[in-house]
Amino acid sequence: MTTAGPRSGCAINAAVEALGDPWSLIVLRDVMFGNRRSFRELLTRSDEGIASNILSSRLRSLVAAGLLTKAESTRGRRGSYSLTEAGIQTLPILVAMGTWGLAHRDGTPQLRIRAELLRDGGPDLVERLSEELREIHLGIARPDPDAPRVAEALAEAAARA
Amino acid sequence: MTTAGPRSGCAINAAVEALGDPWSLIVLRDVMFGNRRSFRELLTRSDEGIASNILSSRLRSLVAAGLLTKAESTRGRRGSYSLTEAGIQTLPILVAMGTWGLAHRDGTPQLRIRAELLRDGGPDLVERLSEELREIHLGIARPDPDAPRVAEALAEAAARA
Repeated sequence: MTTAGPRSGCAINAAVEALGDPWSLIVLRDVMFGNRRSFRELLTRSDEGIASNILSSRLRSLVAAGLLTKAESTRGRRGSYSLTEAGIQTLPILVAMGTWGLAHRDGTPQLRIRAELLRDGGPDLVERLSEELREIHLGIARPDPDAPRVAEALAEAAARA
Repeated sequence: MTTAGPRSGCAINAAVEALGDPWSLIVLRDVMFGNRRSFRELLTRSDEGIASNILSSRLRSLVAAGLLTKAESTRGRRGSYSLTEAGIQTLPILVAMGTWGLAHRDGTPQLRIRAELLRDGGPDLVERLSEELREIHLGIARPDPDAPRVAEALAEAAARA
């Protein structure tokens, strides 16, 4: 089976081809912010109620596109998913999406808080969160192991809302 | 006809619902960077070869979602499309997409240049380009009318490549 090449040489198109569908960024968001690493967690905890056939399909295409890896299944457990470096680098896209959603759509306070913190934290927060994701998903130690974790701060803020 | 509400209260989901498909961001890119304002231009000049029924459908949904407006047709001319403020504010999403595409996919030099300039120009460039878009699409004068135009610099750089 040959894979068709990109529709054009445009860098924006390249990203749209990898992420431009109703669910890929939602799945990446849940892996990234919810640390949901199994098919089961991604399905049963989905705020948007993703269907299981769609989740299957998206996970397969995100692995094929180099945004996720899937670890081997072990006895009694399905494989677990991790972000690749390319997957971690979609964080600025998610932040830009969340910033737009805050400005132009309504939402629930609990879920807006996360987007507000990401929007207001700027490139600095994005870099710190990226370092944490590299630690969790790629096993790369953070430059400053004692720094407070952004992910925990996000989760606490959402819980308080 | 009632419109179903959003799938969840998440700000990221809100943006994905407006933009998460294979063509919406491509159309916005062409309106924004190519100043393509008519159905005909958007169709015939499409680098990705968008099909006419898909372009029709996307333009309708982008208008319904508040990202574009369509001016009345006049004698002998179809209506022309303009960005709304919400449409202009997708620019950071396009920049983030282009930055990811540059880092993780190949592309052609001519089209990479645009993404490189946007990536390297930072929030300052985004703000200046947004002001130019407000002038062109919303009739709002730029704060500094004498400042060189970003859009022209982008087009020249692409042409030199």
